[in-house]
Amino acid sequence: MAIILSVDAMGGDHGVNITIPACLRFLSESFDLKLILVGDRDAIYSQVGDRLSQYSDRIEVIHTTQVVGMDEAPQSAMRSKKDSSMRVAINQVQTGKAHGVVSAGNTGALMATARYVLRTMDGIDRPAIAKLMPTMKGETCMLDLGANVECTPEHLLQFGVMGAQLMRGVVGKSTPTVGILNIGSEDIKGNETVKKAAELLKNSNLNFYGNVEGNDIFKGIVDVVVTDGFTGNVSLKTAEGIAKMIAFSLKEEFSRNIFSKLIALASLPVLKRIKKRVDPSKYNGAVLLGLNGLVIKSHGGADVDGFYYALKQAHHEVEVGVIGLLREYLEQNKGMLEKDEELLEFKDLSSL
Amino acid sequence: MAIILSVDAMGGDHGVNITIPACLRFLSESFDLKLILVGDRDAIYSQVGDRLSQYSDRIEVIHTTQVVGMDEAPQSAMRSKKDSSMRVAINQVQTGKAHGVVSAGNTGALMATARYVLRTMDGIDRPAIAKLMPTMKGETCMLDLGANVECTPEHLLQFGVMGAQLMRGVVGKSTPTVGILNIGSEDIKGNETVKKAAELLKNSNLNFYGNVEGNDIFKGIVDVVVTDGFTGNVSLKTAEGIAKMIAFSLKEEFSRNIFSKLIALASLPVLKRIKKRVDPSKYNGAVLLGLNGLVIKSHGGADVDGFYYALKQAHHEVEVGVIGLLREYLEQNKGMLEKDEELLEFKDLSSL
Repeated sequence: MAIILSVDAMGGDHGVNITIPACLRFLSESFDLKLILVGDRDAIYSQVGDRLSQYSDRIEVIHTTQVVGMDEAPQSAMRSKKDSSMRVAINQVQTGKAHGVVSAGNTGALMATARYVLRTMDGIDRPAIAKLMPTMKGETCMLDLGANVECTPEHLLQFGVMGAQLMRGVVGKSTPTVGILNIGSEDIKGNETVKKAAELLKNSNLNFYGNVEGNDIFKGIVDVVVTDGFTGNVSLKTAEGIAKMIAFSLKEEFSRNIFSKLIALASLPVLKRIKKRVDPSKYNGAVLLGLNGLVIKSHGGADVDGFYYALKQAHHEVEVGVIGLLREYLEQNKGMLEKDEELLEFKDLSSL
Repeated sequence: MAIILSVDAMGGDHGVNITIPACLRFLSESFDLKLILVGDRDAIYSQVGDRLSQYSDRIEVIHTTQVVGMDEAPQSAMRSKKDSSMRVAINQVQTGKAHGVVSAGNTGALMATARYVLRTMDGIDRPAIAKLMPTMKGETCMLDLGANVECTPEHLLQFGVMGAQLMRGVVGKSTPTVGILNIGSEDIKGNETVKKAAELLKNSNLNFYGNVEGNDIFKGIVDVVVTDGFTGNVSLKTAEGIAKMIAFSLKEEFSRNIFSKLIALASLPVLKRIKKRVDPSKYNGAVLLGLNGLVIKSHGGADVDGFYYALKQAHHEVEVGVIGLLREYLEQNKGMLEKDEELLEFKDLSSL
């Protein structure tokens, strides 16, 4: 069966200059892939160029007249950009024409539009942004990374469910371990929300590990790290920031003088292997989980490599049926995720 | 004038095996330094050995019979360990015998005991844990790193005040810039507490920069990064975790085969310079700010190098008069930090 992805060709800081070359590269590798390229027809065709004939049966172009700005408010994008490349690309998933959508467009607008068009899955209150992170042992999924700045314990439990089903599909583990991000490993640590969420996770049928700390993410001691969108976003960006600083130090020190430059030259194969292990491009795609359809968010500033990896991720997640696994789990565990009266009571108390 | 530091010689994972060699090293460099070594007399003397005669006029040993366990509950440490090395070392600051205290003991117990013995400064509701972090431009102070898991906007404003006065002393800037950790640079981002705190900081006489994100910490765009203890702790540990993972990758790749090992050998001077820039030992000491006295917390697992840097930091912060600067600022700005009725009203609203 062919895997069909729709692509917001205009999204991101560089639009078609990045998205289309990445699409062509991925088409040349994945013979079961069809792409619906959504955006300005002329801009798309000018990038596809003479390779159109080669892929004519695997590319469909849908012309749109609007583009969602990278700084545009989500509400404005939803209301006044009904013919945007982003909106129409998402529509393809809603109508069943595509199995998933990839966009490098602005995160807020993408989340709001996708939520409006695709709706949240039964059993999920809030979609979350999830990402695979490189660890010393392999990969760990972390969520939420910024969709929900304030979360209840119930939301965090749902994030655990979503992350676990993602990892079930993506890395093929039947019962992925789930940890909750906290500031110590002991049960007494953290704020009330985190403590109560840990209790919910413990009492669920997930493979709950317990508390994990910021440094544990990269040790790979759990498959899924659950956290609220505020903490998750700060943690992710902190990781990106220090990785960049170390790369900057490496570059500066290796180009300090002629001797260090020669050493750098000789070290190139080793340095390249290291880069490959923690390459941000490779970990570019984030998935908006909890919607009735697969939505992959590429970094707005991604290069061709980065957008290519986002496409690859979408392809893989369609292939292993992440959305189906999550839907199946939610249907089989309706009771566990139903609103808990005790929980609501707890919330009332906490606000006193 | 001599600078006198009291040292919790028994604190940390390795006690006197680490603390005393670090003390001796620092004594050999700083001729204006006197140390009060607090702990088991025999254990201390066995480590000082024959160097006692050399430093006899610059070392005082106070014998104590108890040690606070690294996992001991703060309350238990405070109640039943009145003759612990930690407690008695803090007492030296309270009585004015020492200008500051350094401990690698358990953070919770240290904070609770220091708060009980030294009391919080007038104008400060909650002490915070602050740390200098290496950036691409120099150093940035981040706080709180874990003392307060839930913070009001007022607490965050106070953290801004404390961080700014610390940086005024430590890096000698008259008006250090202060940023608040958030998940976007726009004013509308973040939760209610952060938004309100940003407003308070803006209306204060601090040099407020605005929102900063996780990756901005290491760009060094502000001198002080303010955040709640939960987010701060996760961010700090995330940074430590990814730095360790990158170091692990470097080590693994450079020792993969005989060729890469030779390259590593040749790269040694360059790699050493890089390590020096982001060396965790160098950034070991955290300061408990907001107390009537200087308290430096070393990492529990610190090695001699690490504890040495914690001592050095204490010495420097006494030298530049961090506590005096903060006290002076608080006295001159009493009005700004007084309880704000509007703020209390906001708090009531937010809990609805």
